[in-house]
Amino acid sequence: MSSSDIFTSEFIGTMVLVLLGGGVCAAVNLKRSKAFEAGWVAVAFGWGFAVLTGAYISQTSGAHLNPAVTLGIAIKGDTDWSDVPVYVGAQILGAMAGAILVWITYYAQFEATLKTPEAAEQKAANPGQVHGVFFTSPEVRKPFLNLLTEVIATFVLIIAILTQGLVKDADGTVGLGKMGALITALVVVGIGLSLGGPTGYAINPVRDLGPRIVHALLPLPNKGGSDWTYAWVPVVGPLLGAAIAGGVYNLAWG
Amino acid sequence: MSSSDIFTSEFIGTMVLVLLGGGVCAAVNLKRSKAFEAGWVAVAFGWGFAVLTGAYISQTSGAHLNPAVTLGIAIKGDTDWSDVPVYVGAQILGAMAGAILVWITYYAQFEATLKTPEAAEQKAANPGQVHGVFFTSPEVRKPFLNLLTEVIATFVLIIAILTQGLVKDADGTVGLGKMGALITALVVVGIGLSLGGPTGYAINPVRDLGPRIVHALLPLPNKGGSDWTYAWVPVVGPLLGAAIAGGVYNLAWG
Amino acid sequence: MSSSDIFTSEFIGTMVLVLLGGGVCAAVNLKRSKAFEAGWVAVAFGWGFAVLTGAYISQTSGAHLNPAVTLGIAIKGDTDWSDVPVYVGAQILGAMAGAILVWITYYAQFEATLKTPEAAEQKAANPGQVHGVFFTSPEVRKPFLNLLTEVIATFVLIIAILTQGLVKDADGTVGLGKMGALITALVVVGIGLSLGGPTGYAINPVRDLGPRIVHALLPLPNKGGSDWTYAWVPVVGPLLGAAIAGGVYNLAWG
Amino acid sequence: MSSSDIFTSEFIGTMVLVLLGGGVCAAVNLKRSKAFEAGWVAVAFGWGFAVLTGAYISQTSGAHLNPAVTLGIAIKGDTDWSDVPVYVGAQILGAMAGAILVWITYYAQFEATLKTPEAAEQKAANPGQVHGVFFTSPEVRKPFLNLLTEVIATFVLIIAILTQGLVKDADGTVGLGKMGALITALVVVGIGLSLGGPTGYAINPVRDLGPRIVHALLPLPNKGGSDWTYAWVPVVGPLLGAAIAGGVYNLAWG
Repeated sequence: MSSSDIFTSEFIGTMVLVLLGGGVCAAVNLKRSKAFEAGWVAVAFGWGFAVLTGAYISQTSGAHLNPAVTLGIAIKGDTDWSDVPVYVGAQILGAMAGAILVWITYYAQFEATLKTPEAAEQKAANPGQVHGVFFTSPEVRKPFLNLLTEVIATFVLIIAILTQGLVKDADGTVGLGKMGALITALVVVGIGLSLGGPTGYAINPVRDLGPRIVHALLPLPNKGGSDWTYAWVPVVGPLLGAAIAGGVYNLAWG
Repeated sequence: MSSSDIFTSEFIGTMVLVLLGGGVCAAVNLKRSKAFEAGWVAVAFGWGFAVLTGAYISQTSGAHLNPAVTLGIAIKGDTDWSDVPVYVGAQILGAMAGAILVWITYYAQFEATLKTPEAAEQKAANPGQVHGVFFTSPEVRKPFLNLLTEVIATFVLIIAILTQGLVKDADGTVGLGKMGALITALVVVGIGLSLGGPTGYAINPVRDLGPRIVHALLPLPNKGGSDWTYAWVPVVGPLLGAAIAGGVYNLAWG
Repeated sequence: MSSSDIFTSEFIGTMVLVLLGGGVCAAVNLKRSKAFEAGWVAVAFGWGFAVLTGAYISQTSGAHLNPAVTLGIAIKGDTDWSDVPVYVGAQILGAMAGAILVWITYYAQFEATLKTPEAAEQKAANPGQVHGVFFTSPEVRKPFLNLLTEVIATFVLIIAILTQGLVKDADGTVGLGKMGALITALVVVGIGLSLGGPTGYAINPVRDLGPRIVHALLPLPNKGGSDWTYAWVPVVGPLLGAAIAGGVYNLAWG
Repeated sequence: MSSSDIFTSEFIGTMVLVLLGGGVCAAVNLKRSKAFEAGWVAVAFGWGFAVLTGAYISQTSGAHLNPAVTLGIAIKGDTDWSDVPVYVGAQILGAMAGAILVWITYYAQFEATLKTPEAAEQKAANPGQVHGVFFTSPEVRKPFLNLLTEVIATFVLIIAILTQGLVKDADGTVGLGKMGALITALVVVGIGLSLGGPTGYAINPVRDLGPRIVHALLPLPNKGGSDWTYAWVPVVGPLLGAAIAGGVYNLAWG
């Protein structure tokens, strides 16, 4: 498969992933939304079905949508290391595009949440409602513990993907097949319900970094800072978890 | 496949889609219902499984159930443009029949909600509880923003349908296969959870217009107006979103 | 397939269906249960996965589990009318056995709910909490409207089963296949969410009648009457809905 | 398949099962978790998708993950009795490893829940919030009734697994196939919703005993006792239920 075909497929798939994933956070966090305060079950299923939708859209490139997935599959030996930069580049740009689409979709809800006397007053404080639409934040800020949580959660995701049997198409592209996309989506629902409590489960570097960059750039009033001191955790944690999962896979089943 | 076979299949499928979709809105909105105030998760899964049920029933016609789907598949080149009026005609009539069945199923609940002193008093106001059973309304009424939301949400639906691989049966009819119906249903749950907050996600012109016409005609006491000034948004938005998805599909994967 | 094999398979499958279905009602209705007041979403998914479990267990007999399903398949012409009494006999006895198992499973919770001063005082009144574990009750008691609701809900179930393509095994036994069981389970979740509000959706004569008989016989303190005046509705409604669905199927797709 | 391959696969699969299953209990029980008090629906889906994830990871060993499953399949005659100790040994050690990972993942949440003046004061009492992360407790403590509940719930799980058709791979290893893992996961969601109310549904001896041992060993402040007087119920009940299911299977379908 050509680099430009990989790029297009991964870009659109990751865009939709982050549009739906960020969307459910907007839906439950922002005022004047019909799903306001719909709860954690909504968030976990919303992110899981975001993965499902993105994965179906990008079947032709193997539906990685996540540098941690690409890394795990490369360690297993099923994706050429030379293709990795194309995958990751498309994913980060797709994640940024998805975050912009969330902003457009929920434009009036962002206004309703941020253009209020209370929001203006809290300007210096962290308006968590809006942050949660773009990037993850830990409930208890202890970077080393937060990192461990992300490593463990991503380990589960990647070991499940590697063991369930990846599909190779005629071009040699390796990734989730159709049934694999459904299973992986439900695994992601499970990770959200079970391991999302401490850090909000990034388990995907671009899902956090892409929208964080967009948050920093968007002209949202009273938006607060973009919490760059925490930004390395949801990047390093998932990559580390994926590397461990790839290694364990090769040792145990390789 | 003959026009009359397409018509029958799409009519019954869309009738069931709107019966179940409108039904879940009645279940959570109307008084004296066992599911009263069951929340947004119930609504999102209810609409998704409404799609699943309708799609299984109308497998023989490809399970479009939605003019936006028909348009997307036609732009991709898999449905003859000459069949489009048959599909859309069956869909709008099926949606109207479905809305009438919701009214019959929840007759006593409509009475319990509308034949009250409070409802009589609010006659001039918008009795949103009952409106929501029939048609969508935006939380913040800004038609251009509302249109963008519907365009984006429908783009996601149609690009997912076009990319997941449509099935062609012996007759040449193209649509969702069995697995495709299951996946699409879960995609619709995801769209509801993630993108439904601002407008209530019509993403299907007949799902909104058909029941709106029925609302205008039904002898419901104190029902309020049928909000015709907004009626164009959930028709134009989904068609526009489908057209964009068809074009993107042809450019990226065609 | 021999009559005794059909009987065994349908008996055990329906027993598990009613054990899990009645179980979720006990779980949310009875005091001292971990799922107390878990809400309508829990009930709808609980009944749907009860269908899934029962249907997998009784694959060898086609997984009817419901006289309305047997009737619909017989009208379509895929089950011999001479087998119908065996199916229905096994189903009603299985439903009774399932209700007894619910009582054993939740024995301490029935005590906690019924052996209280409040329950003793309300003896003459309707202790709805306990009734709901065994049989359905309408929210607004209007038998003709309640009948219509059951007819419409069961029509949806049976038309979905007939159109999704029943599977015929080597013996000629016709019923849901494996994928069909999964789809039907999710359709039942959808019917519960969307059409369950007015009557609690029996959509299966034995699911209501079997446990009602058991309720009348069990030595539960302060249990109240078994509401026999309503008992015909959840029997006649589903059979009528199934007959209509069978007829529509034969006209539209036969 | 070699003993060491069985061991590795079952160890990692059961570790992930208990990590996700214990994780969802931590997520809803512990303070400073984003899913705090997310409710019973979250718990039931969390455990079900924990089964799904663990089962996909350990496909090569048949994905038993549970001595009750191993016992049921052995009674059916599909697993050699000589392999049973390997399965059970890997499962109990995997469950302990999973419980330790839950502790690491939610380290800060355990602190937030236990290092408080209230927790210190209640030292002698049962801090149920933390117990529930590791082992099950009955709502009404009547060991014989609690045992019956576990027997019935596990009977449902094992009869469903045995009847749905186990898959035999090239090595002769028998267990859930891919579709079987999905179905079983949803059956487990159903058992949780329907039969989990009285005892919290262990339905798996190692899921309860493994984390209970870890609870006894971990240096958690104010953790209370490990409730060893109840510990036999979630071990004996599931094994008894599995034995009955194996016997019924052989009589009815064998």
